[in-house]
Amino acid sequence: MQALILAGGSGTRFWPLSRHSFPKQFLSLKGDRSLLQATVDRQRPLIEPDDVWISTTEALAEQVRSQLSEVPADQVLAEPTARNTAPAIGWALGVMPRTVREGVVAVLPADHRMEDSAGFRTVLERAGRAVENADRVMTLGVTPNRVETGYGYLELGEPLLGEPDLRRVKRFTEKPNLETAGTFVESGNYLWNAGIFVFRGTSLLDHLTRLEPEVGEGLAAIRADPGRTAELYAALPATSIDYAVMERLDDLATLPLDCGWSDLGSWAALAEILSPDGPGNASRGDVLAIDSADNLLWAESGQIAVAGVTGLVVVRTAETVLVVPKERAQEVKRIVAALRRYGRDDLL
Amino acid sequence: MQALILAGGSGTRFWPLSRHSFPKQFLSLKGDRSLLQATVDRQRPLIEPDDVWISTTEALAEQVRSQLSEVPADQVLAEPTARNTAPAIGWALGVMPRTVREGVVAVLPADHRMEDSAGFRTVLERAGRAVENADRVMTLGVTPNRVETGYGYLELGEPLLGEPDLRRVKRFTEKPNLETAGTFVESGNYLWNAGIFVFRGTSLLDHLTRLEPEVGEGLAAIRADPGRTAELYAALPATSIDYAVMERLDDLATLPLDCGWSDLGSWAALAEILSPDGPGNASRGDVLAIDSADNLLWAESGQIAVAGVTGLVVVRTAETVLVVPKERAQEVKRIVAALRRYGRDDLL
Repeated sequence: MQALILAGGSGTRFWPLSRHSFPKQFLSLKGDRSLLQATVDRQRPLIEPDDVWISTTEALAEQVRSQLSEVPADQVLAEPTARNTAPAIGWALGVMPRTVREGVVAVLPADHRMEDSAGFRTVLERAGRAVENADRVMTLGVTPNRVETGYGYLELGEPLLGEPDLRRVKRFTEKPNLETAGTFVESGNYLWNAGIFVFRGTSLLDHLTRLEPEVGEGLAAIRADPGRTAELYAALPATSIDYAVMERLDDLATLPLDCGWSDLGSWAALAEILSPDGPGNASRGDVLAIDSADNLLWAESGQIAVAGVTGLVVVRTAETVLVVPKERAQEVKRIVAALRRYGRDDLL
Repeated sequence: MQALILAGGSGTRFWPLSRHSFPKQFLSLKGDRSLLQATVDRQRPLIEPDDVWISTTEALAEQVRSQLSEVPADQVLAEPTARNTAPAIGWALGVMPRTVREGVVAVLPADHRMEDSAGFRTVLERAGRAVENADRVMTLGVTPNRVETGYGYLELGEPLLGEPDLRRVKRFTEKPNLETAGTFVESGNYLWNAGIFVFRGTSLLDHLTRLEPEVGEGLAAIRADPGRTAELYAALPATSIDYAVMERLDDLATLPLDCGWSDLGSWAALAEILSPDGPGNASRGDVLAIDSADNLLWAESGQIAVAGVTGLVVVRTAETVLVVPKERAQEVKRIVAALRRYGRDDLL
């Protein structure tokens, strides 16, 4: 099995720690290894670094290579331009040698966390076997542990290949409202779409050509004439693999993941997986907390001292400090947007 | 009239902006001039810098001279050791030429704020005249504008010298409880002790000798044999001028000050005198506040970005950041105490 890790993101949710030139996947949010490095580590020994491919951007490629010296440098692929995940995955498959893309490929986000790596590998291996045996496209679905409106939901259909938990996906529902999400989670018949896909590379390209011909045929033209890559790639519609393929497949299959997954979508989500001290403060670096509880206190540079505060995120870097209540951690996006408006590239 | 400014304090309430080697009186908390500089400015032209004396410590004397180049350098007096205000004032008077200390001297704290300087000078001038004409010891009392348990209260007695608002002080009450403070303020018959005293220097020394002989006689011995200053000064009891003299005088007199006084006792007190923006954030430096109100955001170094927070004090320096709710601003003292315990001299 090959791993294709999507590491082109430039998310702003972990500002000020994540920066335009140093996005989330490069951060070591728990432990010493970055999320990207942990994503490579997690598959070993099921997938060794020699079989890892990284899709990233021109701007980030050097950084990826320096964090992942164990991955062959020419398997770190810089997208010609940003065109969302359908072109990115399709183009990466096209760059792989034909014999490689005829095999099983697992697509993995570079910036998620999985507590139980061994459990994850077991599910990934089972998915790989299902692909090999039945040429299925698989999406791994996370077993929900709360009502969440920010994710896509997979409705489970009938069991496949005689395995009770290997199911056909009946329907995708993107970001339902609170009531619908509650019904989904209560029913036990839904999984979260985690953006982890397993398929035969050539089959995925066939699906792409059938379901989203503009992308599929554009990618075929690039494979036929690599010298025109920049020009042809820029002309592809920017569309996601979920929308272009996964949501439209009749026979998409899924296996449940229950491995302590988190997409680390905000500072608040990070706070939940860090080990807190007695009063519930999760701290990193030089931190002094007096009479304070339930805070995330992250001193990347210098010191943080708090007294009498609750439920805050405080992140200090050499340039700035962020203070936001945990329950409003999403508003970091508004800060980043304002800084962009004010031309504060020094902070972005 | 001479001014004797007490600038030996090393308060910790404005940590992390105030440091052991750079205490509050050196800070520019409002406007460009430091509190110490503003204290000298405030009296002009009633008292010009040539008639200003500063009592400070050995460690701070150079800094005082550099902030106050307009004050003659030999009028910046470094106490031999820290012995509280009674010895400090008595010793400074002893260092002054006899003709100077026979005149009127005003003792002024170096780290308070007065909004209305002209109004203050008017009261100070009247106090000076009362001292000249009747050889009184005067303490200027601040007209209370709220019930406050953190100050000393002066109970007003009968009018003196035919001036209705020049009153005998009947009694000192140090830091009353909330109920008593409420009664005091409601009665309209009390002023806050602001630590601003006006007297004839030689008379103050006489009172000191009569009321606190150990201090008064020790100081006389120093005047008689300045070569033994260090040794004799170190032997003086450390006692405050309030306790040693003011609270014990039968004929202490007072005039009311209603000039926008603040002792700037905490970050919260500072927030009250800074001009807030629309939503009520008082900011200094590079600050971005989104959906946030009623905060004090002080970026001495680098940037501060907040979203969705209310009623916080956030102070960023090159070394650290403080986050504390305004109503718990006093707890900065606990942070400083903890840092001291941990030997964090790099932050103190």
